[in-house]
Amino acid sequence: MAKKLNVGIIGYGFMGRTHSNAYNRVTDFFDVPFDPVLKVACGLVEDEVKAFAANWGFESWTTDWHKVIDDKSIDIVDICVPNNVHAEIAIAAAKAGKMIICEKPLAMNAKQARTMVEAVEKAGVANLVSFNYRRVPAVTLAKRLIDEGRLGRIFHYRANFLQDWTISADVPQGGMATWRLDVKAAGSGVTGDLLAHCIDTAMWQNGRITAVNAMTETFIKERKHAETGKVEKVGIDDACTFFCRFENGSLGNFESTRYARGHKALYTFEINGEHASIFWDLHDTQWLMYFDHRDEGRMRGWRKIHVTDHGGDHPYMDHYWVPGLTVGYAETFVNQLADFLTAAAKGEPCSPTFREALETQKVCDAVLESAKSGTWVEVPEE
Amino acid sequence: MAKKLNVGIIGYGFMGRTHSNAYNRVTDFFDVPFDPVLKVACGLVEDEVKAFAANWGFESWTTDWHKVIDDKSIDIVDICVPNNVHAEIAIAAAKAGKMIICEKPLAMNAKQARTMVEAVEKAGVANLVSFNYRRVPAVTLAKRLIDEGRLGRIFHYRANFLQDWTISADVPQGGMATWRLDVKAAGSGVTGDLLAHCIDTAMWQNGRITAVNAMTETFIKERKHAETGKVEKVGIDDACTFFCRFENGSLGNFESTRYARGHKALYTFEINGEHASIFWDLHDTQWLMYFDHRDEGRMRGWRKIHVTDHGGDHPYMDHYWVPGLTVGYAETFVNQLADFLTAAAKGEPCSPTFREALETQKVCDAVLESAKSGTWVEVPEE
Amino acid sequence: MAKKLNVGIIGYGFMGRTHSNAYNRVTDFFDVPFDPVLKVACGLVEDEVKAFAANWGFESWTTDWHKVIDDKSIDIVDICVPNNVHAEIAIAAAKAGKMIICEKPLAMNAKQARTMVEAVEKAGVANLVSFNYRRVPAVTLAKRLIDEGRLGRIFHYRANFLQDWTISADVPQGGMATWRLDVKAAGSGVTGDLLAHCIDTAMWQNGRITAVNAMTETFIKERKHAETGKVEKVGIDDACTFFCRFENGSLGNFESTRYARGHKALYTFEINGEHASIFWDLHDTQWLMYFDHRDEGRMRGWRKIHVTDHGGDHPYMDHYWVPGLTVGYAETFVNQLADFLTAAAKGEPCSPTFREALETQKVCDAVLESAKSGTWVEVPEE
Amino acid sequence: MAKKLNVGIIGYGFMGRTHSNAYNRVTDFFDVPFDPVLKVACGLVEDEVKAFAANWGFESWTTDWHKVIDDKSIDIVDICVPNNVHAEIAIAAAKAGKMIICEKPLAMNAKQARTMVEAVEKAGVANLVSFNYRRVPAVTLAKRLIDEGRLGRIFHYRANFLQDWTISADVPQGGMATWRLDVKAAGSGVTGDLLAHCIDTAMWQNGRITAVNAMTETFIKERKHAETGKVEKVGIDDACTFFCRFENGSLGNFESTRYARGHKALYTFEINGEHASIFWDLHDTQWLMYFDHRDEGRMRGWRKIHVTDHGGDHPYMDHYWVPGLTVGYAETFVNQLADFLTAAAKGEPCSPTFREALETQKVCDAVLESAKSGTWVEVPEE
Repeated sequence: MAKKLNVGIIGYGFMGRTHSNAYNRVTDFFDVPFDPVLKVACGLVEDEVKAFAANWGFESWTTDWHKVIDDKSIDIVDICVPNNVHAEIAIAAAKAGKMIICEKPLAMNAKQARTMVEAVEKAGVANLVSFNYRRVPAVTLAKRLIDEGRLGRIFHYRANFLQDWTISADVPQGGMATWRLDVKAAGSGVTGDLLAHCIDTAMWQNGRITAVNAMTETFIKERKHAETGKVEKVGIDDACTFFCRFENGSLGNFESTRYARGHKALYTFEINGEHASIFWDLHDTQWLMYFDHRDEGRMRGWRKIHVTDHGGDHPYMDHYWVPGLTVGYAETFVNQLADFLTAAAKGEPCSPTFREALETQKVCDAVLESAKSGTWVEVPEE
Repeated sequence: MAKKLNVGIIGYGFMGRTHSNAYNRVTDFFDVPFDPVLKVACGLVEDEVKAFAANWGFESWTTDWHKVIDDKSIDIVDICVPNNVHAEIAIAAAKAGKMIICEKPLAMNAKQARTMVEAVEKAGVANLVSFNYRRVPAVTLAKRLIDEGRLGRIFHYRANFLQDWTISADVPQGGMATWRLDVKAAGSGVTGDLLAHCIDTAMWQNGRITAVNAMTETFIKERKHAETGKVEKVGIDDACTFFCRFENGSLGNFESTRYARGHKALYTFEINGEHASIFWDLHDTQWLMYFDHRDEGRMRGWRKIHVTDHGGDHPYMDHYWVPGLTVGYAETFVNQLADFLTAAAKGEPCSPTFREALETQKVCDAVLESAKSGTWVEVPEE
Repeated sequence: MAKKLNVGIIGYGFMGRTHSNAYNRVTDFFDVPFDPVLKVACGLVEDEVKAFAANWGFESWTTDWHKVIDDKSIDIVDICVPNNVHAEIAIAAAKAGKMIICEKPLAMNAKQARTMVEAVEKAGVANLVSFNYRRVPAVTLAKRLIDEGRLGRIFHYRANFLQDWTISADVPQGGMATWRLDVKAAGSGVTGDLLAHCIDTAMWQNGRITAVNAMTETFIKERKHAETGKVEKVGIDDACTFFCRFENGSLGNFESTRYARGHKALYTFEINGEHASIFWDLHDTQWLMYFDHRDEGRMRGWRKIHVTDHGGDHPYMDHYWVPGLTVGYAETFVNQLADFLTAAAKGEPCSPTFREALETQKVCDAVLESAKSGTWVEVPEE
Repeated sequence: MAKKLNVGIIGYGFMGRTHSNAYNRVTDFFDVPFDPVLKVACGLVEDEVKAFAANWGFESWTTDWHKVIDDKSIDIVDICVPNNVHAEIAIAAAKAGKMIICEKPLAMNAKQARTMVEAVEKAGVANLVSFNYRRVPAVTLAKRLIDEGRLGRIFHYRANFLQDWTISADVPQGGMATWRLDVKAAGSGVTGDLLAHCIDTAMWQNGRITAVNAMTETFIKERKHAETGKVEKVGIDDACTFFCRFENGSLGNFESTRYARGHKALYTFEINGEHASIFWDLHDTQWLMYFDHRDEGRMRGWRKIHVTDHGGDHPYMDHYWVPGLTVGYAETFVNQLADFLTAAAKGEPCSPTFREALETQKVCDAVLESAKSGTWVEVPEE
């Protein structure tokens, strides 16, 4: 019989919804050692947090996150608030001995992230940063193929994260819905929001990034604030491109923007090895493209793999329906939670931990610094 | 406050899982007038039904479906058993005044389906047959575009449902896992299992099929029975192709097989109109292809629409995440249930009703008859 | 030193152009035993044939095809006129001992085709029917893979040829540009014009078709004649669908129409075997899709093969540029001519001969007869 | 009657073939004011140049390029030799008053290119650099759409040119077949060979590049020389990535490598504007992808345009076959030649002239310099 796991979620926005859904569904699909109970939802606006709690079946709600931390019955604190509040909550939760799942990016910068790593490691609590795209079945399959050495020596890693939702100058910054455009809440623009995903996946698949050279741009220089209506300077990066070197000698090329018409959330990566290459695209999330030069010459081609097979062939899919039928975005959080709970029960770390997410934060810092200096910046190793 | 809706599900196989999931999730995503409660799960093997009930959170379980019907507290009976048992249960449930959701195909044949239609209509109970693919957002969008007349006069309707899971002669027939290969349980092979989906969608989008001309084949003539191990003649159609005429003057071409290597569940349809055409493919379930000849000549092309937009643009998607992020197979059942509950609360029928599913059954009967006679068979209008 | 080959082309329409181009280019790319010389172009309208001859570099022109036949210096007669004139010219050319290349379909019907076969076989002249799509490199590669047995037992063959150029009721019939819509000149509509290609390729790849069951439709019943302006009944089939059985036990499904919006010349085929499947599409002419179930489970997918490799991997491509760079439609005729000239020099037949094209004609006849009778029609074996 | 144009081609490698083919075919498809005559072919190895001349129908051959220049009857000199010999020949040809077509990149560096520009401008001779990809019909269509302002303000330009043919350490450098790997003959690696194409197209479509920041890598440090067999240091760049700023405020991201498994010649570009975006891919050369945000919301999607339409819709295609049927790589040179001859007869420049190609050379120089310095390099304006 699985042990009850009392959950407190802080933040009821987009991520509050995806995490709540994962807690509700994980036991339907996975045989996990914990049975999550949605104890308390926490958020700023009373009406909204009440509605959120009712919708997802939380037993209670609060507008004060300290109450969640102070509640002895809570086993896990799940942080779904804007980036600028992660550290304070996470450190408090660690001190209170809670397990912690924190939305990405971990922090406003590497310095802050380090304090969070220290806190969870000192407290010895289970911790995870929600880079959920690692748990897309096709992405996990890609990781396995790389780890088995099928690609041989790696030459290139390329990743893009392209969106088009901020092209209109009428989109405001700040507030609940558009805090991602407010540098004070988000810390940065596409670098922390989107490239952080790409960097996390890239280092997981291809090892450490040692140095970067970046360019950023803010296309729309001023926007109204969503709450005050005041026109203010935009502080975030609307677009960021960087190239880099990995420790294994391969070259990286990364780009993200919110000004690419026609792309809603086009996260893609391609990795080119001596023997084989891999390509994936979030819009076609259920497919993995794989090219193997060792195939017979006449019949070499990019294989379009529908990552929905069972019998252990395709990660996570045995837990769902039948071959050929897809899962979607929501299941990446379910898969992640299943892995986390399984690891936590064994006292094992679950990737990406706060410590691993710190590495991503260091690369983001280096990218932003390089964009300012216009030259290469080393990513500190320690 | 939504009214409680006590649910009894009969059958704990693949469809029992998809339906249970829908009841659990529908209120998370839709504001429906009922709040489903998983009261009782019913199935043949005690250990299995117990485990199923525990997994999905049913309050109780039974191995006798009559108990579900007889239980006054049950509001809705959900039939997820093999085709040969649909009629008996549905008729009993109707007499008991229950709402009914029945898996497809409705019955073993049109004659039997008629008795079921009569039962639910006499009883006046809400009823639905679970042709879930109608509620893929891209498929519903296609329906809307057709209904608005954007395609103009329709010339062609083409649909395929291609699988490859029975190519090995070692796949058995009969039993719990492979009852679909047993003609006594399934009634037919790909015609009732797969083409029924294609026919349902086609008539919903393009109107009545008036006459058909078909060919069927059973490639593997004998298989072991899954339970007895006895080698027996295979009674189902492994493959079925038919062409047909629709009442609106357009031509249809349908094909299904379980012997198409490389296709796990490739349900596709294409509809060609005077002005525009539409294509959809279950393996790329989140995309709709649309070609409009009224576009400027130089820039005419098939538009690849990622059916994940919000703001009312794309059916059902406002209820889920953000543009660009996908839902999967499971959500087709959630969407269907939301529509059904909403209609039921208003006392309105929800498509496809038993009566509409009877039309599909009539076409299936005509297809199988035509395959035997080798010539055209009219689909009876009444 | 290659021997001169004096060429007389009869017909200066679309096919006259593709064949003239092939004669001009074949020695640039292939080491063939003949050096074609464009001696004479023949066609009905003096101004037009003169311009045509000047454009392509013919030494002379005529409006009387008998002069081409009677000219002793002519080695090869190339027939590019409407279908209803093929037989008369071909039989005369055979009697005069000329090599013959004839556009497809060979004749108006099988009866007439038989007289042509007899004529060329009696005369012992080299002969070829220009089913040029066999010589698309990807299509030839598909044939090789099938012949090597890589697909195993074949279950299904599916082919479509979809166009959209006659949807407007304003398109006339008859005349030089639209003789394909005039049943007197063309013999049939899409069956002889488009399905003949599909049938030729299908039987080449998959063996004899033994019986067919077909449906045809003429959507626009009357059209103006291009020359007289008179509104007349349309005698051709605008659309034709048929299913069939092959001698090897596999099932066929074929469809062609000129009423499929969005498709200019979408010739596709798919062949499903026990072990592997193949798909090709004329709009993506340089790609071949190949799925092999013997690939490791996790990495099974449709391979998208860019059929442009050298070193003998991809048919014909060694003769052109470098890997990755494409050839187009014109080269199918160049490849075909190279094969024909090579075979002719050795006194060997070159596929498809008139005799092989007669087989296609028999299937077309059976299709048209079946569409009238509404039931199966056997394709005569002799 | 078109005037004879006597052609001398210097170089009989890959480009010698594509150019010869273009001269032979241009009058078949275009009504041009000159009728090219292949007068003389020139190359280093007597046997090879003789065979080349015979194959393509040249009237004579020579191993001394000065003889081509000195021959008064020659109207146009076409330079298809390695990059390090372009300048000397071009300057001599200009002095002799010949029209000149020169393969790309124009020169070894901008300094050398300047001398060539001065020579042709002083001589007042027609001149063109063969950046043939501009004349892919889909690429020309893209240019038209951009010039009409359909994309609105441009935010991003992205281009890749990915190959995989030098991954094996056994590929030699130097010699006739692999001079592109020899820095003394080629000047640079992928930068001059591949990125030059991308830069040329990009500036043609999107205006001047003002500054670049680049990274290069040589993965295989030593290779045998093809002729001497001696193992020597590799001097070229195997891979090059750069980002840049355009004068119009948009950002560029360019990458090229010969170490991307699965890509033979994958030249792609994407341009993202305020209203619309465009994507093209050389492997799918006949398609243009176009997304227009002004389309109705529900039906917005990337339009896959088969660039084969007639009636003026698609550039160059009226000159070839019928809609739906493709041309290939060879036709880019035919189209280019037709444009050049038409312009030359009018005394007008034909893009890209030597002067325009100098701009590309300047960007290439800046890229290589930046890769060394590790920081931004301005592209000189003058």
